[in-house]
Amino acid sequence: MGALSEGSLLARRMLQRLAEETADPPGVTRAAYGPGEQFAHDLARAEAEALGAIVATDAAGNLYMTLPGTEPHLPALMVGSHLDSVPHGGNFDGSAGVAAGLAVLAEVAARRLSLRRDLTVVALRAEEAAWFPLSYPGSMAALGLLPAEALEARRSDTGRTLADHMKEAGFDPDAVRDGLPQIEASRVEAFIEIHIEQAPRLVRRDRPVAVVTAINGGFRHVDARCLGAYAHSGAEPRFSRRDALLGFVDLVHGMEAVWDRLEAAGEDATITFGRVQSDSTQHGGSRVLGEIRFTLDVRSPSEALLESIAASLAALCEDIGRRRGVRFEFDAPMTWAPAGMDAVLVDRFERSASKIGLDLPRLSSGAGHDAAAFAGAGIASAMLFVRNRNGSHNPDESLDPADLNVATRLLLAFVTDFDNDLSGSEKST
Amino acid sequence: MGALSEGSLLARRMLQRLAEETADPPGVTRAAYGPGEQFAHDLARAEAEALGAIVATDAAGNLYMTLPGTEPHLPALMVGSHLDSVPHGGNFDGSAGVAAGLAVLAEVAARRLSLRRDLTVVALRAEEAAWFPLSYPGSMAALGLLPAEALEARRSDTGRTLADHMKEAGFDPDAVRDGLPQIEASRVEAFIEIHIEQAPRLVRRDRPVAVVTAINGGFRHVDARCLGAYAHSGAEPRFSRRDALLGFVDLVHGMEAVWDRLEAAGEDATITFGRVQSDSTQHGGSRVLGEIRFTLDVRSPSEALLESIAASLAALCEDIGRRRGVRFEFDAPMTWAPAGMDAVLVDRFERSASKIGLDLPRLSSGAGHDAAAFAGAGIASAMLFVRNRNGSHNPDESLDPADLNVATRLLLAFVTDFDNDLSGSEKST
Repeated sequence: MGALSEGSLLARRMLQRLAEETADPPGVTRAAYGPGEQFAHDLARAEAEALGAIVATDAAGNLYMTLPGTEPHLPALMVGSHLDSVPHGGNFDGSAGVAAGLAVLAEVAARRLSLRRDLTVVALRAEEAAWFPLSYPGSMAALGLLPAEALEARRSDTGRTLADHMKEAGFDPDAVRDGLPQIEASRVEAFIEIHIEQAPRLVRRDRPVAVVTAINGGFRHVDARCLGAYAHSGAEPRFSRRDALLGFVDLVHGMEAVWDRLEAAGEDATITFGRVQSDSTQHGGSRVLGEIRFTLDVRSPSEALLESIAASLAALCEDIGRRRGVRFEFDAPMTWAPAGMDAVLVDRFERSASKIGLDLPRLSSGAGHDAAAFAGAGIASAMLFVRNRNGSHNPDESLDPADLNVATRLLLAFVTDFDNDLSGSEKST
Repeated sequence: MGALSEGSLLARRMLQRLAEETADPPGVTRAAYGPGEQFAHDLARAEAEALGAIVATDAAGNLYMTLPGTEPHLPALMVGSHLDSVPHGGNFDGSAGVAAGLAVLAEVAARRLSLRRDLTVVALRAEEAAWFPLSYPGSMAALGLLPAEALEARRSDTGRTLADHMKEAGFDPDAVRDGLPQIEASRVEAFIEIHIEQAPRLVRRDRPVAVVTAINGGFRHVDARCLGAYAHSGAEPRFSRRDALLGFVDLVHGMEAVWDRLEAAGEDATITFGRVQSDSTQHGGSRVLGEIRFTLDVRSPSEALLESIAASLAALCEDIGRRRGVRFEFDAPMTWAPAGMDAVLVDRFERSASKIGLDLPRLSSGAGHDAAAFAGAGIASAMLFVRNRNGSHNPDESLDPADLNVATRLLLAFVTDFDNDLSGSEKST
């Protein structure tokens, strides 16, 4: 498998245009079903059409770009990721995966490679939970698995429903509600997602690309509260205070101790409070706080561990409530199931990597990804992470085009090797 | 000293009108130099003029209402409080003291009592630090002690300066800047402030009125920050997190331990965090927090204790910063000095109370009051607290008119006793 030419140019061109056209300093904003996401879909479609791909969208607005194989009765290979971003996010979270998929299409077309299976690049909608408090609604709709009530979820900035936004963008929420799958699991042989890494683990290992073995599941309370009683900071005696902040602070320390115990036992989990707010109409320098609102995000590859952490949380809140005279209220959690990646696919990636002289470490994913939805639907799935120095969901995401080329070369090798024995596929380069 | 008639009617009438005309549900709003405060001043002025009092305002808009004594060369007795309220606050914080002062004027006038000294009721401006981050700017201006730079402080809701607001309300910030006192300390024999209690200590003791022995000083950081690094909650490994929330939480627990030690040593102080906010443009369910903004309010009757708490704070922040990879930034603190009330005046109140058969407990004040500014200027000062079930700075402040009448009767007895031996003064009732 030689150096890339067409694919590398396509990916650079596409990511460059996205950075320019969806800029919203600092960073980019591509809201789910907003104009930035739509621009990205239009751009991907134009690139795919120029390559001669067959293009289609589904009722939820997911975009499918296919180079037909020589044996169309075989289940397809599908490659994809999402094109939305968090507000003022980085340019590469999601888009790098679609760009890499299209780069593979470009190389297949330019090299006139003959593949037995259809090769479909899919651009998925609305992956970032910053917009709708849902797990992968675009993928879930494509798979016919989105619960009807999810269409009533409201976008964080507009307050309008997913159904409204889908309809406004020209799609068909009623068909989504009916749950007819666009993607039949039996018609997909494998789903592959390329994504920037979201913590600098490849940077520390000095490697450009990793294969992902599992995607953590989790639960999240997006609007939890600790309720006490407002009082005057100077006048209220200590014994009669019911300080919501002290209750919340105890909870943070208590959950940190839970994480300490899990870590000491070698268990894999994260526990994070990502928003903390007192009420701006009530708080102030001379107040004892009567209310704190917060988010709590818990993740683990183990469903059992998630349940045990939820039980620890409930016990802690009861104990703190009693000691501090406060009360905790939790909204119904948003949950997403852990997803193991397909071991056979991971092996295939390792063999293809070794063929092109690439050392391919294995990593797990703390963050959720569309690939988890596909795995959850029973489709063999795998992911590649590409090195990124600065985490994701921020304007400082970094992606060396050379690293993305390595991932693209690996994906191209994987695709061309897929239905050939590995010694043979090298001949096509 | 018999039951009140004119005074009781005046106080009820005035507080009732204030509740109606400055209503801003929930509660009342009388912004410093705003229309609600001005309405209150106009109302007080009208009541005083109806009693035949001599009325004047100073450059800062403080209002002086005087019944002249028979020996005008003697230093005056001054009674007063403020007429502003916090946003959506209660009706009685401040206004009850002015109403009680006017009630005493009404009784003196109605009973044709002859006092040797001038008796001045003063309605002070802008006491609530919710508007300007300053300690008693109205009183300080009256005393010629307001620093020139305080005139550049900005009102929390409008963002405009104290000087602008003074000017707009018809007063003279340039004269205030020059620091000429309206109140010559040598011309005031005593300053007395009546105020609702701000925690239900009299409720617990089942007493209507207390005499205050000291007003706590304090310092407050109104916009402190803990700075870490934003990251992805699922992806960022624990070892590399610099979670601003965990740093802040350590600070809250650390300061609680400081308070524990002080309390165990019998020392009097309060330590309160009254506002906590993550950045709404950055925070979210999938974030590790990079910044927390907060207020910290520390109070004590002892200047030395305040200094030692500030030193503990600095040491804690350094230690936490090192352990958590975070950094604390504190704005210059707003400070106010502790003020002892005048022991001779406290004794006089106790003697007058015992004459009217009133048990008068002693309390200290955790909250700051205008009386602290007068004491700081070298004027013998004292305060009475009136029972209030529900704290202050909230719409639920409560004040039983009967309790305010008890305070008014006590103040009337104190005033009439002031230059008479105590056995003689009773004859005038």
